[in-house]
Amino acid sequence: MPERLNEPPLTASTQNAAPQTGPPLTVAELSESQLLERIFPRLHYGQEHNPSLILGPGDDAAIVAAPDGRTVLSIDTQVADQDFRLEWNNGYRTTGYDVGWKAAAQNLSDINAMGARATSLVVSLTMPPETRVAWVEDFADGLSAGIRELGAPDCAVAGGDLGRGRELAVSVAILGTLGGRAAVLRSGARPGDILALAGTVGRAAAGLALLESAIPVAELSKDQRALMDTQCRPLPPLAAGPLARDSGATAMMDISDGLVRDGRRMASASHTVLNLDAAVLKELAVPLLPAAEVLRADPMAWVLGGGEDHGLLATFPPGVQLPHGFTAIGSVAALAPPDGTGVTIAGMPAATVGWDHFAD
Amino acid sequence: MPERLNEPPLTASTQNAAPQTGPPLTVAELSESQLLERIFPRLHYGQEHNPSLILGPGDDAAIVAAPDGRTVLSIDTQVADQDFRLEWNNGYRTTGYDVGWKAAAQNLSDINAMGARATSLVVSLTMPPETRVAWVEDFADGLSAGIRELGAPDCAVAGGDLGRGRELAVSVAILGTLGGRAAVLRSGARPGDILALAGTVGRAAAGLALLESAIPVAELSKDQRALMDTQCRPLPPLAAGPLARDSGATAMMDISDGLVRDGRRMASASHTVLNLDAAVLKELAVPLLPAAEVLRADPMAWVLGGGEDHGLLATFPPGVQLPHGFTAIGSVAALAPPDGTGVTIAGMPAATVGWDHFAD
Repeated sequence: MPERLNEPPLTASTQNAAPQTGPPLTVAELSESQLLERIFPRLHYGQEHNPSLILGPGDDAAIVAAPDGRTVLSIDTQVADQDFRLEWNNGYRTTGYDVGWKAAAQNLSDINAMGARATSLVVSLTMPPETRVAWVEDFADGLSAGIRELGAPDCAVAGGDLGRGRELAVSVAILGTLGGRAAVLRSGARPGDILALAGTVGRAAAGLALLESAIPVAELSKDQRALMDTQCRPLPPLAAGPLARDSGATAMMDISDGLVRDGRRMASASHTVLNLDAAVLKELAVPLLPAAEVLRADPMAWVLGGGEDHGLLATFPPGVQLPHGFTAIGSVAALAPPDGTGVTIAGMPAATVGWDHFAD
Repeated sequence: MPERLNEPPLTASTQNAAPQTGPPLTVAELSESQLLERIFPRLHYGQEHNPSLILGPGDDAAIVAAPDGRTVLSIDTQVADQDFRLEWNNGYRTTGYDVGWKAAAQNLSDINAMGARATSLVVSLTMPPETRVAWVEDFADGLSAGIRELGAPDCAVAGGDLGRGRELAVSVAILGTLGGRAAVLRSGARPGDILALAGTVGRAAAGLALLESAIPVAELSKDQRALMDTQCRPLPPLAAGPLARDSGATAMMDISDGLVRDGRRMASASHTVLNLDAAVLKELAVPLLPAAEVLRADPMAWVLGGGEDHGLLATFPPGVQLPHGFTAIGSVAALAPPDGTGVTIAGMPAATVGWDHFAD
């Protein structure tokens, strides 16, 4: 029903092929099926010869394999000007590729954090009518590339939904398989466990600070641009989740809202305290110095409060050899009521830092 | 990261309990976890004693049963001022309950149309900061009631995502099980099959016309209000999908964009022509007369072009006794190239009517 509310139907003449010259083609100039015809070929990765996908796009719903009789399931939405800016203060323009990649990365990370492997995703894209068709094609390329390059070869794009709105928004729902094994929950950390990190922390936050700064993109160094890239196209360590599960991880979660905030969630779910090692935190801040120095910022705030790198926080039984990709960053202690801080640094309560959608 | 882009963090004092008096509480005054605490109890239906739900909300992802090793999967988004108005021309205000109910109905219908039963859904709600908390609670109640009252007792609300945006939007991804049987696709209609309908057509479109009219809600008759209700809280026939599958339906789909438009999709996928019976179409128009007469509208346009009742269009082998809830509305004919009209009425090509998100 939608557009009848706001906009008159397009005339037949505007439904025809894209003009060879003139202004860029927008989604308002194509029918939904014409737009899908342009997107589908770009999402073919995973749709062919993919054992996960029993029935792909084109019917009322897709059918996806769930080989062990269970499926892991999550949903996540990105909204323009809330979760990203289309044009940043430093002049960088978020590409469709960035948004597609980030949608894949965020959602794949949630599956990874359960110790599972992604089998499929469906995507709902809401677009203002002036959105360029080329942007949407770029989005599809970024989504596809994120799935492939982050290492989720069995994740098929099983279908989706296109619609109009005043603001650009992307919702992705993702499914995964545990391959017959138990999931690694947030609630299993035990006193004495090793606290470990896979992937990075603080880089996306440092990149965000650069994007919002007055320093033009062209003047950024290679290291600074790499931080910006982590914000726009994060690199969650997808091999690490199943590896941690197989190595006996007792608890695990995705760091999307910051080490301290997410750590408090794990501590709370596990009824423990997570104690971060101060020396390790300083080491984690080193890669952030190229941004911190130029912005005169404290890199430790990014280490402790920055989400969106989508690193994995996991706990392992004492004495276990940490799996490839994990570094010890602290330890799990017993809860000592009435102390409810959840996360300490060298035994001292950490300030609450991190991201909440509605309040800080 | 989101709100850091637009809005300063709330001060500690505003995070506290709702004021006893004063303006209504908005989502901007609560943290995400405080808001979730208010929503979760309202979604408990299906989360307790539900065999579909192995792990519910609270971790990085949910875990849902897929007993036959497959899961049916769909996603759908509703955006305010595109898919519904918060306030209509005739004075009706869309409630949170309406939006929650409609999100459940639309998505449950997609699972129904495959001949499957819903096992779970996840919901992503994007809200402007001024959204009232009471509206969100009402949304959760409507979602829950839609699942229960439409007849999807095994569908658990497995989790979700809350975020801010300038416009209100709801994305739901839904999973279902085929219980070991084959899905009913759009592509299986064969010449000679009976074309049948379960549920209604045109009522939601007639209701939309009333909502957009200048006739105040208070002046509507009971029958007219019932049409408006179908637009705001549709009643897809959820028992009909699995029943049709068990009765040997050869093709099936959900009518969400209109009988002719969706019929053309089935005809195209099946390489056939669907011929609608003119006398039956006239009968389908009768319940729409209370709106058509007062608006001086042609009810047949709603019968042929109106989606959103989420009726089921299915084809059955000739001679089969139609399952409970289905009425014969025509027959399937062989494709006679170069005729690509797809849908005919009493053998004559039907005009293309129905809903497309981007063009008509």
